[in-house]
Amino acid sequence: MLATILHKPGDIRCEEIADPKILQPTDAIIKLSASCICGSDLWPYRGLQPVDRPMHMGHEYCGVVVEIGAEVRTVRPGQFVVGSFCISDNTCPHCRFGFQSSCVQREFMSGAQAPYARVPLADGTLVATAEVPSADLVPDLLAVSDVLGTGWYAADAAEVREGSTVVVVGDGAVGLMGVLAAKEMGAERIVAMSRHESRQKLAREFGATDIVAERGEEGVARVKDLTGGVGADSVLECVGTMESFDQALACSRPGGTIGYVGVPHGVNFDGQRLFFGQKRMLGGPAPVRRFLPDLMDRVLKGKIKPGKVFDLQLPLAEVADGYCAMDERRAIKVLLRV
Amino acid sequence: MLATILHKPGDIRCEEIADPKILQPTDAIIKLSASCICGSDLWPYRGLQPVDRPMHMGHEYCGVVVEIGAEVRTVRPGQFVVGSFCISDNTCPHCRFGFQSSCVQREFMSGAQAPYARVPLADGTLVATAEVPSADLVPDLLAVSDVLGTGWYAADAAEVREGSTVVVVGDGAVGLMGVLAAKEMGAERIVAMSRHESRQKLAREFGATDIVAERGEEGVARVKDLTGGVGADSVLECVGTMESFDQALACSRPGGTIGYVGVPHGVNFDGQRLFFGQKRMLGGPAPVRRFLPDLMDRVLKGKIKPGKVFDLQLPLAEVADGYCAMDERRAIKVLLRV
Repeated sequence: MLATILHKPGDIRCEEIADPKILQPTDAIIKLSASCICGSDLWPYRGLQPVDRPMHMGHEYCGVVVEIGAEVRTVRPGQFVVGSFCISDNTCPHCRFGFQSSCVQREFMSGAQAPYARVPLADGTLVATAEVPSADLVPDLLAVSDVLGTGWYAADAAEVREGSTVVVVGDGAVGLMGVLAAKEMGAERIVAMSRHESRQKLAREFGATDIVAERGEEGVARVKDLTGGVGADSVLECVGTMESFDQALACSRPGGTIGYVGVPHGVNFDGQRLFFGQKRMLGGPAPVRRFLPDLMDRVLKGKIKPGKVFDLQLPLAEVADGYCAMDERRAIKVLLRV
Repeated sequence: MLATILHKPGDIRCEEIADPKILQPTDAIIKLSASCICGSDLWPYRGLQPVDRPMHMGHEYCGVVVEIGAEVRTVRPGQFVVGSFCISDNTCPHCRFGFQSSCVQREFMSGAQAPYARVPLADGTLVATAEVPSADLVPDLLAVSDVLGTGWYAADAAEVREGSTVVVVGDGAVGLMGVLAAKEMGAERIVAMSRHESRQKLAREFGATDIVAERGEEGVARVKDLTGGVGADSVLECVGTMESFDQALACSRPGGTIGYVGVPHGVNFDGQRLFFGQKRMLGGPAPVRRFLPDLMDRVLKGKIKPGKVFDLQLPLAEVADGYCAMDERRAIKVLLRV
């Protein structure tokens, strides 16, 4: 099959490789309905994360089970499934506490920018739908796998509640999903920090009540203006740079909460700054598995349309153009037809 | 009156100064029933915090109101009051959210290691009892002012719940109060990390179910053993050094919560470490004012005896001996008879 390999920063190719096979009795093989490119794929693509050997790219997926290992019990061939980018057994103590992204058997999914993929720990990782959904729902269900699940976790970690005032730092796909999540959770005011017109528009569609285009001190001043000088109850940090964390810390009120889901790169916190800032913080790789049933249900019932975040569709063979478009911020998120 | 002045690190003296006076119409003057020395007083005493000019020491207090400013409405001369070490108006948005230690008018109390003290923003800061309590309750009520309030906040910030597994890092007075707080909040298992026999004994009295004397990796291994390999739901960080934060991070489970109340000195966090550790964190100066009515009520009803934390009583004139005893860890906490 054709699959996506990153050979070195900037060198991404679609190449012929062997089809995936069952390696463990807990594995499943799925035929993907679609795949996509993640903002986090850009870290190694941009050389900001080491590429020691060719990387099989892609960790967001949904599709139809074609084969299962001997020990798989909860999914069977023919079923449509969505899985998390974090592989988990969903039975260990951390999973039972709802932190499947810290599962004792955690692996990170890879190789999903391809027509077929092997999913380890299929019972713990995959959630099946009752029926194979119609094709028009595939982008929405694909989004659940990571980008929506991660934005949702940002809002959950930031303790968004009915009536909350929320600031979303970052207008990438995850930030936009954070806006959608905050809206679904009942936030009253959702401030999207965005400088890009097309993203501002989408943020408003997903539920943003205010847009702040300024950054740094000016951005903080605007947020303070919008919140009567108080700051936000909840801030979703969806970037992962020191600049974005500075923004998040300065925009939240004392006792407010920051949910952070951008993998930190070059980020360091001074202890006294956090102490006297008095902000609650929780971040990490999103435990998407916790949210999968609920989010799939919202999609299948037509309550949410997270697939709108895909503003460019390409055939898998043109994956390199997709990386380029996201790298240059010409596309918010690229869906790959596999 | 005699009052306690820190002239430079190690040079603490009891000296004659003018009695405090009403400076603002919102002030009150109280005659202290007792005062005490705080672990945080040791930072400047040890030269770990700059001493630019003579410091009027002491921020924990309870006593009888002797004079009030023209605008004070909620307390009157003759009433017994307890106040927080953080002065707050108790009306600003941060106060209303329960974070009075980030009040827009916040000041830190000073000059309370003396027979009389001026308390600014008396209406927002002080809570009066219905009657003047008996003398034997004074140590307990004095403890509420900071050390218990701070240990309580550590447990509250660490989200201790009915049935929680809790680790307390630090066996100073605040850590011991954290044990008491966790017990009151219904924790099932309370692990006190302590190497000192007298402190271990007091920890057990306050509700610790387990003592871990080891530190570093050995300490973590013991906590993991005690928690079935999982780690604690809640960790109370009551020291403020990088070593103690390392301990706290390693002892809590993914998705667990760290409440930190030791003012961080030389503490720095790497962003990726916090991200992949997936620990919820909240710290800061304790909003004791939020807890005062409840904690005073528990003391007055005899439910808790936080005053046990004072294991040395000295007359104010011997305050230097008190600092020395705490610096050398010969005393957990020193009560000063004023």
